[in-house]
Formats: sequence, C-alpha cells, structure tokens
Amino acid sequence: VSKTTKDQLGNLAAKSIDAGEIPAVILVRPQLGENIGAACRAMLNFGLTDLRLVAPRDGWPNPSADALAAGAIDVLNNAKLFPDTASALADIHYCLAATARRRELELPVVGTDVVGGELRTQINQGRHTAIMFGPEKAGLTNDDVVLADAIITYPINPAFQSLNLAQAVGVFSYIWAASESTAPPPVFDDVQSVPAKREDLVRMFEHLEKELHQSGFFFPEAKTDLMRRNIRAPFTRAKMTEQEVRTMRGIIKALAKGRGHAHKSVQYKDKTS
Amino acid sequence: VSKTTKDQLGNLAAKSIDAGEIPAVILVRPQLGENIGAACRAMLNFGLTDLRLVAPRDGWPNPSADALAAGAIDVLNNAKLFPDTASALADIHYCLAATARRRELELPVVGTDVVGGELRTQINQGRHTAIMFGPEKAGLTNDDVVLADAIITYPINPAFQSLNLAQAVGVFSYIWAASESTAPPPVFDDVQSVPAKREDLVRMFEHLEKELHQSGFFFPEAKTDLMRRNIRAPFTRAKMTEQEVRTMRGIIKALAKGRGHAHKSVQYKDKTS
Repeated sequence: VSKTTKDQLGNLAAKSIDAGEIPAVILVRPQLGENIGAACRAMLNFGLTDLRLVAPRDGWPNPSADALAAGAIDVLNNAKLFPDTASALADIHYCLAATARRRELELPVVGTDVVGGELRTQINQGRHTAIMFGPEKAGLTNDDVVLADAIITYPINPAFQSLNLAQAVGVFSYIWAASESTAPPPVFDDVQSVPAKREDLVRMFEHLEKELHQSGFFFPEAKTDLMRRNIRAPFTRAKMTEQEVRTMRGIIKALAKGRGHAHKSVQYKDKTS
Repeated sequence: VSKTTKDQLGNLAAKSIDAGEIPAVILVRPQLGENIGAACRAMLNFGLTDLRLVAPRDGWPNPSADALAAGAIDVLNNAKLFPDTASALADIHYCLAATARRRELELPVVGTDVVGGELRTQINQGRHTAIMFGPEKAGLTNDDVVLADAIITYPINPAFQSLNLAQAVGVFSYIWAASESTAPPPVFDDVQSVPAKREDLVRMFEHLEKELHQSGFFFPEAKTDLMRRNIRAPFTRAKMTEQEVRTMRGIIKALAKGRGHAHKSVQYKDKTS
C-alpha cells in the first residue's frame, strides 16, 4: 500500500499535466469503470497523469472507477472528458493507436522497443503526445485509428489476444517509464517545423470531404466511410506541418472554387485577345 | 473478445508447460482471487502458462479467480498448488524475485532491459526458470527473496509504488514476450500494399500542378517553384501506395471538375449572348 499522501499525488498530477512532458492516455469509449480506475493506478505507478476519456459508456463520474484507482484517485479526478476522439486529440501533435487487430489502413507500426524514445524525442521538441486505447470489446474503430500517426501493437500471443484494457494501459505505462534512460537526445531542433495540431488536420479533412461530397466524388454512397478513411490515411501519415495544412487548405479552395477563377481568367483572356 | 477455443488454449498450456521453455510465475501467498485470475489472463496474453500458487490466503480453488481469468481459465485450472515457497521452487534452476523494496540481502539486481535475454539464455541451456511475486500488501519476505538468484525491480514512480499484483505479472509477461524479438510482430505483413512508383507520383504532381495553375493558385509567378516543392513534400513523405495515388488523382479530378463545368457554362453564356 502506498504511503503517499493525497497532496503529493495532486502536486505530481498538476505539475506533470501542465508541463506537457508526458504522453496523454486516451481511453476511447471505455465500458467498465473498474478498468478506468485500474488504468489510472497503473498510469501513476509509472509517472503518467494525463488521462482523457472519450464518451465513457456508463457516464462520468463513475463510482466503480474510484475503488480500483486506489491511491491514484487524483489522476481520476483530473481526467478530462470529451464527446469524441477528434476533440480529445485537438491539442495533440503526435498520436499512437494501440491495437492488436489487422487494419486496412496504411499506417506505420512503431515497435515497443523504440516507441518510448520516439515519444521522448517528440516531447523534447515541444510536441504534445498521446496514445489511444479502444473500448474493451471492439477496440478502436478505423475512424479512430486514422487520426493516429502510428500503430503500436504488443508482442501478444496470437492464440489469446484479448488483453484487459487496464493491463494494456499498464504495459504502455511501463514501456514509457522504462524508456527514460534510453531516450535519444533531441536533434535538429532549429530546423524542425511546427507540426499541425490534430484539430487543424481534422478541419482540413472536413473541408476536403465537403468539397468532394459536393462534386459527387463519394459514389456509391455506401462506400463513403471507407473512401473517407482511405483519403485521410496518407495525409495523417505525412505528419504535415502547420504551413503544409494551410497550403493544402488553399489547394482545396483553389481547385473547388475554380468556377470563380475560371470565370475571371476567361474574362481576362477575352480582354487580351 | 478472444475467438480462441478452449481446446487451443489447453493445447498451448500443455505444450508450454511440458517443454519447460517458459518461466514459471509463482504467486506467493496471494490474497485476492480476482488478482490471481487477472494474472492468469495477462500471462496467457504473452504466452506464459506455468502458474504456481504458494498458500493462497482464501484457499484453492477460488471461484472469484475464474471470472477475471476470462479466456485463460485453463491456465488457472492447470495452476499447481504448493504449501511454501521452497517446494514451489523445487525444480527451478534460476529464479527471480520481483520487489520494489530495498533489501539488506546481497543479491544482484537484474535490469528489465536484460532480464528477458537472461531468462532465454538460461532456458536455452536447459534450465528451469521462474519469477516470484509476493502478497498484495506486504510483498515478498526476506525468507522468500533469499531463495532467488536475482532481484527484478520496475522503473516505478517513487511517489506511488503500490503496483497491483496482476499488473506486476502483466508487465513481466510483456517483458518476457518482448524479449523474443525487438522487431515489431509480423501481423501486418499481409496487408502491406504496393508503394507507388516515383513515376506515378510525379504524374500525380503534374496533374495537381496543372489544375492549380489553371485556377490561378501560383501567385506571384516568381514563387511557383518554391510553392511546387512545398506542395510535393508532404505527399512524398507519406510514401503513398499505388491505390492512394489513384485516389488522389480522382480527388484532383473531382475538385477541378467544377471549374470545367464553370468554364463550359461561361462559354455557353458567351455563345448565347
């Protein structure tokens, strides 16, 4: 049993969250309060305190989470609640999706041996990082995963892949803590551009999809979701910078607003001819 | 939820135990059946099946272990019961003690980064290996620990060291599985798509740039080359597949189509005016 006082935990939680020096743990549509509580405890065991909950099934707060959080109740109380995955990721620059399932998505898989170093490198460059875990039964949907930069998958027994949610969080939290001594130093600090926040990327997707919808691109309509995911994947994978997202918004606008421009250019031609 | 049948698990358990190719997990005087069940599940997730119980507090079998074992119920049913630590270790050649507490004992501490390799080296030499975990509240006694060859300790948050027993077993099980290979598991191999040839990528760029040019996007003209490079960069970085390039060509066409229509409609107007 921990001898740590509530005040100490509170300070740790507040300090770490403000500093942005640790990855956020995002539980997407978690089902059991017990797993949320147990996940909190495992997080704090390994120094993680930024918990985000996307639409927990049984509402929030959830009394059945409290008991299993044990001494990590402050992590639970500081958890942030979001209606959907995109809003939970709004301020995040680099996001991992934890999944054991095969995906049709073209996303890189980052090994458990290098993921801690990758996260620390990102954090050293001032980026906000996160890892997403899906609901107990179904795991993350493809719509969730396509918002991630990379997939992380554990070396799991193929004959028994059903990993408990809190265990999955615990293993990641351990990996994070164990990577402290192996983090590579930050390099090329001064030439790094600012990566786009997930929020900006999602707005770009919505802009593109709106224009594609209006041009009749999504056909047959039953395939719209699949097509949307396939369109999003390479853009996410490219880890676009803020400037590149702005450029892409300009491209979409220029191509879609062609009507006006074409009109002008026709008028211009007419004048010079 | 695992789709694995009971038979498959039973076979895995039997095979692995007989082979002596994996470390045994020894829970010394465990208190809560729930933790024993959850530990079983985490063990099997990472390929461990040899569970040994030393004097569980609430007797054995324990119904409250069953629910949390979930699909790993055969590991639970195959667990061996011992009256004391020494008898549980009788056939073991190399044993680790998991503990977060300082000991006055002169035992080497083996790092989590090398413990998997150490265990595999022992096993390759035909040795039987094991790891011991103590009871939830008090942990292993010095009398238990002195039976071990080495201590293993996790990089735990000094402000909150109270790690759940099943989480401790889960983290070890992960460390074991992860030590098999440092490469990411090959589960995604068969969904790898064909990467686009550079030729296809260049044609896509030219298509996009042609349309952007016609829409008046490249302004001022002196900056065209710089803008072209900036537009190309994220697409190249995304390492697009053949299919993604085809999709992107479709996107450019769909968005630019509006302009064609606009153009025609302008010509149409001209003709009729």
